[in-house]
Amino acid sequence: MINEQMYAYGAQKSSIREIAAWGAARAAQIGAENVFDFSLGNPSVPAPPQVNEAIVRALALPPTELHGYTPAAGLPACREAVATSLNRRFGTGYGPGDVFMTVGAAASLSCTFKAVVNPGDEVIVIAPYFPEYRVWIETSGATCVEVPADPVTFDLDVDAVAAALTARTKAVVVNSPNNPVGVVYGTETLTRLAVALEEAERTFDTSIYLVSDEPYREIVYGAEVPWVPGVYGRTVVCYSYSKSLSLPGERIGWVLVPDTNPDHDELVDAVAGAARALGFVCAPSLFQRVIVDCVDVPADVAAYAENRALLCEGLKALGYEYVEPQGAFYLWVKALDPDAQAFFERAREFELLPVPSDSFGCGGWVRVGYCVSRDTIERSMAAWEALAKSYR
Amino acid sequence: MINEQMYAYGAQKSSIREIAAWGAARAAQIGAENVFDFSLGNPSVPAPPQVNEAIVRALALPPTELHGYTPAAGLPACREAVATSLNRRFGTGYGPGDVFMTVGAAASLSCTFKAVVNPGDEVIVIAPYFPEYRVWIETSGATCVEVPADPVTFDLDVDAVAAALTARTKAVVVNSPNNPVGVVYGTETLTRLAVALEEAERTFDTSIYLVSDEPYREIVYGAEVPWVPGVYGRTVVCYSYSKSLSLPGERIGWVLVPDTNPDHDELVDAVAGAARALGFVCAPSLFQRVIVDCVDVPADVAAYAENRALLCEGLKALGYEYVEPQGAFYLWVKALDPDAQAFFERAREFELLPVPSDSFGCGGWVRVGYCVSRDTIERSMAAWEALAKSYR
Repeated sequence: MINEQMYAYGAQKSSIREIAAWGAARAAQIGAENVFDFSLGNPSVPAPPQVNEAIVRALALPPTELHGYTPAAGLPACREAVATSLNRRFGTGYGPGDVFMTVGAAASLSCTFKAVVNPGDEVIVIAPYFPEYRVWIETSGATCVEVPADPVTFDLDVDAVAAALTARTKAVVVNSPNNPVGVVYGTETLTRLAVALEEAERTFDTSIYLVSDEPYREIVYGAEVPWVPGVYGRTVVCYSYSKSLSLPGERIGWVLVPDTNPDHDELVDAVAGAARALGFVCAPSLFQRVIVDCVDVPADVAAYAENRALLCEGLKALGYEYVEPQGAFYLWVKALDPDAQAFFERAREFELLPVPSDSFGCGGWVRVGYCVSRDTIERSMAAWEALAKSYR
Repeated sequence: MINEQMYAYGAQKSSIREIAAWGAARAAQIGAENVFDFSLGNPSVPAPPQVNEAIVRALALPPTELHGYTPAAGLPACREAVATSLNRRFGTGYGPGDVFMTVGAAASLSCTFKAVVNPGDEVIVIAPYFPEYRVWIETSGATCVEVPADPVTFDLDVDAVAAALTARTKAVVVNSPNNPVGVVYGTETLTRLAVALEEAERTFDTSIYLVSDEPYREIVYGAEVPWVPGVYGRTVVCYSYSKSLSLPGERIGWVLVPDTNPDHDELVDAVAGAARALGFVCAPSLFQRVIVDCVDVPADVAAYAENRALLCEGLKALGYEYVEPQGAFYLWVKALDPDAQAFFERAREFELLPVPSDSFGCGGWVRVGYCVSRDTIERSMAAWEALAKSYR
């Protein structure tokens, strides 16, 4: 009698969260120092001190102003700060009217899908992919179409995307730096993608949106992350401060509708309408003020870079294969068993908790999140060694 | 090509917000002190000092703990605090598992509708009603069915609700203390409603949920607000701290699935699934900690009570008719023109900005929000007088 699909979404839970819950229970049994939980994407780097300083400053405002409703799209000063920051970094000319503040990346994406999708449409995701994409795409009424990444480099396989485009394709989701693999799509790849999308638009006489999900934009290890709307005009950028400012619980992010969109004004209204329809009134007001002050505070990538080096060197020495990550804070490690779930279960016997790649729509790998303490990585090495030996 | 319904929701805007925007523009022209904006439900009472004190206390926590993801349903301590507070006040036995923390009342309602509704269902609202109900009900796939309140007292017309119940009725929404009228539904009325719903459940062999939207529960002027799940078991309670703690911009509230629900466990999962599907990851983490500390901080009703007395006495002396409000912070005033929109436009000529009742699905009245400064009410009286005179 209730909605069976919502019940299923609630009862199944996210497999990543299930692993984390298992880890927490196990830690209570044998001590947290003996469980190596690499499952979550919860930043291990603390929010920069500027965040709490901005909160304290905001507390001096009259409470009715500080805690009151903001416009649905956000405080003008906040949207202006975001646009100005983007313009400085990417040489663009965005204004506050292009920015819609959201309750984090999940809201950015669910509002974007809801804004552009009509029932029966298709939305393409690149497998492996963040599993919640499927939930939001299906909730918007579209079909989630998986297109595999290159099976060796895990770069975007433009030919495979081109082959999957149909008259029903409404959007393609790209996520670079990528969760779970850590690849960054280069300008050349994105340009070929843009050509393929434009060709399909002409062939089918349709409009295809590129949804660029960029929560890891600032978490890179030397790689340059191209500005996607500069390559393909009909792009919507979804962002969150969960990773760059380590604020995942506070739920603050934005949707950018770049002025390169041919239907810019209608799209801006549709994003606002979707936010209204899904039950988002405004982004949390205190954290909109934090963003005004912290929009240009750099992400602390050094700790992740150190963890990355430590984990890569350690696993390489033990004979593990992995994709060298250019960004984000995950290592994509080849399972020692063709069945990633079986490999995960074996790893768990050694108190290692990566996430099997089946969760991301792809077999044979595990995701090892290195947004953990350095100590966890160091102490896990004996377990990784024992796990490898158990397969010899 | 984009979603036309979302575009319409975004382009049309809320008529209440449109009036407020007109008021702001007018204030810039002639001075804020000369515009009497009674349109919004933005609390004029500041958040109690305990809120900012709780924020400062929370800032002492490790940032990764303070600003990190919480479980989707909320921090266990927060859910426990809410359940304990309800148990103390209503003699119930709820546990943290019955409470799902949300991003405010809009999220509470959109998640509840999405959780229980299947496409083609009907959801009954009592007109006049908060206009966003229709948006969330339609977005969940149901039809919004309006049932008029008693045309004189604006109490719930149980016979009218009973007559509107069909085999497709999935839920009935009650909002007491009521926005826009200020009535509080008594136990006797709710008991008759419960009997009607149970009879319809037997007649149609269906389940009908009572969705009790209660953001104004604490804003009352002597009236007792019955605990709805005590009267009808299949009730879901939607709450927000926007009004009681004056935190509308921070987006914090909850859904309670009382243990009186026959399908309690499935419903809890469905609410969680709906929150996931709509793009809510968790309620803002800092404000979950604020609620732990402030769950029992009393709402400051005195200022609203003073405004209410001032506005009622003033308008009564001028010959206006209105419904004596028992709760919330709105006065429901009879328009001096059968066409409420025409009356609103005439009022606007006198710089008075109430909301015409057409926005709430009902003709012939205006809503005058008294969540404004005392000064605004006092100075508006000459305008109300001139408006009344213009009709003589």
